[in-house]
Amino acid sequence: MKKIIITIGREFGSGGREFGQRLAEAMQIAYYDREIITEIAKRTSMAERYIRQIVERRPIHPFPLTIGQTFCLSAHPVQEQALSIYRAQSRILEEMARKSDCVIVGRCADYILQDRNPFRIFIYADMKSKLERCRNRANPKEKQLSDKDLTRQIQSVDRHRADYYEFYTGQSWGNRLNYDLCLNTSRIPMDEIVLAVAGLFP
Amino acid sequence: MKKIIITIGREFGSGGREFGQRLAEAMQIAYYDREIITEIAKRTSMAERYIRQIVERRPIHPFPLTIGQTFCLSAHPVQEQALSIYRAQSRILEEMARKSDCVIVGRCADYILQDRNPFRIFIYADMKSKLERCRNRANPKEKQLSDKDLTRQIQSVDRHRADYYEFYTGQSWGNRLNYDLCLNTSRIPMDEIVLAVAGLFP
Repeated sequence: MKKIIITIGREFGSGGREFGQRLAEAMQIAYYDREIITEIAKRTSMAERYIRQIVERRPIHPFPLTIGQTFCLSAHPVQEQALSIYRAQSRILEEMARKSDCVIVGRCADYILQDRNPFRIFIYADMKSKLERCRNRANPKEKQLSDKDLTRQIQSVDRHRADYYEFYTGQSWGNRLNYDLCLNTSRIPMDEIVLAVAGLFP
Repeated sequence: MKKIIITIGREFGSGGREFGQRLAEAMQIAYYDREIITEIAKRTSMAERYIRQIVERRPIHPFPLTIGQTFCLSAHPVQEQALSIYRAQSRILEEMARKSDCVIVGRCADYILQDRNPFRIFIYADMKSKLERCRNRANPKEKQLSDKDLTRQIQSVDRHRADYYEFYTGQSWGNRLNYDLCLNTSRIPMDEIVLAVAGLFP
């Protein structure tokens, strides 16, 4: 039987991670998210925290990596590290997808695993609902942020995610044409979304 | 109990109408699509075919109707007719939504009924899958069209839908932020989509 591979792109604060975890639970299949960074750390002997910083940083090159075959890599050390992290990540995702049915959150998995025909979901929400979700899970320091500052922070994380995705895939992040399903979590209770999506894989 | 109003925007050839019909059937609620044009014809004493031509024509004004309160209507007769059709349509949609739970396809219903908090779905598909769907339902003349010509025709209908929607709503057609759910029908069988979405309204 063909393997089920579900990839999830998500806006910051939209509940994409919660959705992914609960979907994997409901379908009783593997779930990969932070595990990927941990695995990269093991293989590259870089610290997890450092890897996280690199993959969350805006790429330095002005053009997507996918443009041009004669693309010449600069010797910028951070850029080289970012690329070696991306390569390690691609290998790890391939291994995970080969192993068993799974849900993978983020990490350009929809693009990296495209030959395996993943089911590509994008999770998003209205800003009001994202603010509320972020407030609920915020640490004491973040709780003191004004709505305006929190909005800016959310937008900034999403801009970085978009840049990262576009740099490595040459595709536009969150553009519906790159996904099979785009879900707005602002109004539908999470329980119902999970049930409905799990129902697509009888 | 709160009324269920489901609005469906759709790309040409994506199966949006079939989805709407089958969803309404599965949920045993009313379905409105071409009925709206028939009703407008009754009330405005214009011919259905003429109304269809008007609503499928690209709006003449260069700015969305929603921009500016001091917008001054031109005396262009087709434009005036288009506006009176839009007004009749708005009234009819309001009445339909008041009457019972329903599924409404197209006609800017998501925007017109926004105060009633409709569940807004957008149905789309890859071009390959839209071409296939169009071929299957084509009349003998259309069947002779090359893929290139059929693609052009599909793109042209969608451009008109986008212009129409943008003109009357000031919003961007197909932009995920205006919808609760965007569904790509290229890979999920229609039966499963209908079941999953109906499941969101237990």
